[in-house]
Amino acid sequence: MNSKPHVVIIGAGFGGLEAAKKLACKDVRVTVIDRTNYHLFQPLLYQVATAALSPADIAAPIRAILSKCRNVEVILAEVESVDVDAKKVKTVDLQIDYDYLILATGARHSYFGHGEWEKLAPGLKSLEDAVELRRRILMAFEYAEKINDEKARRAAMNFVIIGGGPTGVELAGAIAEISRHTLARDFRHINPSEARVILIEGDSRLLAAYPPDLSESARKQLTDLGVEVRTNTRATNLTEAGVQIGDEFIPCRVKIWAAGNNASFVGKTLGVPADRAGRVIVNEDLTVPGHPEVQVIGDLANFTHQTGEPLPGISPVAMQQGRHAARNVLAMIKGRKAKRFRYWDKGTMATIGRNKAVADLRFLHLSGRLAWLAWLFVHILFLVGFRNRLLVFIQWAWAYFTFDKGARLITRNFQSEQRPPA
Amino acid sequence: MNSKPHVVIIGAGFGGLEAAKKLACKDVRVTVIDRTNYHLFQPLLYQVATAALSPADIAAPIRAILSKCRNVEVILAEVESVDVDAKKVKTVDLQIDYDYLILATGARHSYFGHGEWEKLAPGLKSLEDAVELRRRILMAFEYAEKINDEKARRAAMNFVIIGGGPTGVELAGAIAEISRHTLARDFRHINPSEARVILIEGDSRLLAAYPPDLSESARKQLTDLGVEVRTNTRATNLTEAGVQIGDEFIPCRVKIWAAGNNASFVGKTLGVPADRAGRVIVNEDLTVPGHPEVQVIGDLANFTHQTGEPLPGISPVAMQQGRHAARNVLAMIKGRKAKRFRYWDKGTMATIGRNKAVADLRFLHLSGRLAWLAWLFVHILFLVGFRNRLLVFIQWAWAYFTFDKGARLITRNFQSEQRPPA
Repeated sequence: MNSKPHVVIIGAGFGGLEAAKKLACKDVRVTVIDRTNYHLFQPLLYQVATAALSPADIAAPIRAILSKCRNVEVILAEVESVDVDAKKVKTVDLQIDYDYLILATGARHSYFGHGEWEKLAPGLKSLEDAVELRRRILMAFEYAEKINDEKARRAAMNFVIIGGGPTGVELAGAIAEISRHTLARDFRHINPSEARVILIEGDSRLLAAYPPDLSESARKQLTDLGVEVRTNTRATNLTEAGVQIGDEFIPCRVKIWAAGNNASFVGKTLGVPADRAGRVIVNEDLTVPGHPEVQVIGDLANFTHQTGEPLPGISPVAMQQGRHAARNVLAMIKGRKAKRFRYWDKGTMATIGRNKAVADLRFLHLSGRLAWLAWLFVHILFLVGFRNRLLVFIQWAWAYFTFDKGARLITRNFQSEQRPPA
Repeated sequence: MNSKPHVVIIGAGFGGLEAAKKLACKDVRVTVIDRTNYHLFQPLLYQVATAALSPADIAAPIRAILSKCRNVEVILAEVESVDVDAKKVKTVDLQIDYDYLILATGARHSYFGHGEWEKLAPGLKSLEDAVELRRRILMAFEYAEKINDEKARRAAMNFVIIGGGPTGVELAGAIAEISRHTLARDFRHINPSEARVILIEGDSRLLAAYPPDLSESARKQLTDLGVEVRTNTRATNLTEAGVQIGDEFIPCRVKIWAAGNNASFVGKTLGVPADRAGRVIVNEDLTVPGHPEVQVIGDLANFTHQTGEPLPGISPVAMQQGRHAARNVLAMIKGRKAKRFRYWDKGTMATIGRNKAVADLRFLHLSGRLAWLAWLFVHILFLVGFRNRLLVFIQWAWAYFTFDKGARLITRNFQSEQRPPA
């Protein structure tokens, strides 16, 4: 239908979206495929799970973001496989040919072979995950308020988070804060501030990717919030009733999984080498062996050419790779070769709570209020779309001064909500 | 456990919440029972269904609203029945004794004996309904963008709304506006402004409860927006493929039910006379025959003592009845008799779109921009909680100047979202 080279981008996360923006209004045909109709600002997902923000505050319609340039088309579809030889992408109901492919389908959480644990301890990757976690956390307090059995009540007020990476740390801090502040006056038969928040980490320290001093600071800041931090500890079994760690059993109603990541299954369909987490091992120019027209970026890519270690699965890596992949495509179209990718590490930060955070700015390590302000600034700045930015800012300001969290809704899904109508 | 008289309020809608507020910090024990943990600002539900607002913008946690006074307790539970002789409320897992009962469980939509139609044409009473409608409306455009079959595409872009009351009118106007403005630039293969919005009303005019001149004005304003208004028309059958009206079949993917109401099933368990819609026929003091300690208010009550007609199922009636019922309880506790209720009609309004609305202020009938501004003012004013008010105002202002609607999220429920994890 069109002689211009066709670039297909699968996944409109941080990586895919940056690639699409770079190719917008250029002399190519671009098709962006995603299984949701919105770009999700994942770093704030834990705030939806803990009732500080609404789903729409951290999600922007992909079509709206990319509507300006007519050379970009968006398709809402679930990709099933890629045929690199036929240069075809297969979705449930469509087959799409490409000249160049940028694969950015990311990762979900990994239960290390215990898939049955997911229903017991949901992870936090999608809006649906976040709303479900919010429901479970708030329902636990409602249940505790109603139940007379003391043991059941205690179990309902124990929150176990498995995994001491950024997500686990941020969730632990936020749950502690809700129970200490937001819900403090809401109940009559329980005292929400007696809730126990237990953070389990298999490694010897939290935030393993951070410098040791910040890991230690994170532990201290969490402990100040009343979170029980247990390092060198692994969950050996999960049941409805609780979590088994070694020979200790912690009875708890709400369990949250923040441990492992597992790359999207789409990567495997390329038929190129992948690592144990399913990430595609990419060349130093982000292409895959034998297929210069195929590039893999973000959480789905295993890029070791810079440090010997794979780059971390964080948004700055994905965004820089997205822009680089787009540049490579434009170069290859002009008959030039793809360039090698170099990640520019501006540092990373994780928030723990009100005035509590850690920031690794490489030459500068920040903790507490300063780190928190830096985190706030960066996240307001990068939040997609002016509208969301404004709304989020207002809600944060409100929450900061009132300790209130507005989005405390326990919503069920459509079917379960229905009663037999007349 | 406590010698003070115990007042149980079932339902924290407009009626129940007002009653609870009036009894807060008074010399009684109050228990509020609701099956959700939030008070829903129902008049704005259609704005969630049409992606203008987020669920949390129009819902406030009941506990937070009632947290100040320790004599008020909130229980999240689904009431199954009331035993008026034993003075007991039965929920799934609790039995609650009362000295005084205020029943305010409202209504759901009625399918006039066609319960099977609900899955095909959801109504709009709960947040879950709204999010489901939002999903269906947005998915219809996504489907139309993808499908090649011309007939299927047309069907996907036909939206049929059954029922020309305020909800139907507001939904029709809002869907027309999204397709004409919000989504205009988002697609490549379809032109969203070609969407047909068809509003079906069995009566000879829209907004039957309004003065004829405003019904006519509403029809004209809707027609200006491109809505096809069909009065004196009834849906004789609904299928996946479309809607049968008389001998015409309108193929359409999205069907919305805004026709009938059916009072909550809890009313029937009182064992007192009810009307055909299941509303409890109350005495002129809001009590039920033979049980002065039981009062029924809001959409669940049939109150005919003022005009001979039942009062309409709108929030002002519910709120005034809620406050009156609370006063009655306090009077009866002091040994006085319950007073007869009088509804003070301040008028009603319905919005149609940007600068489009009708307002019946009894002695003054407004249309267009003026009515719209009045509607805006009143709804911002009455929206529960300063926080929500501010957020809603900003989003409306934003939408007004940009035609953008921010909450365009297609979310699925938790289960259906999961893929088999590793």
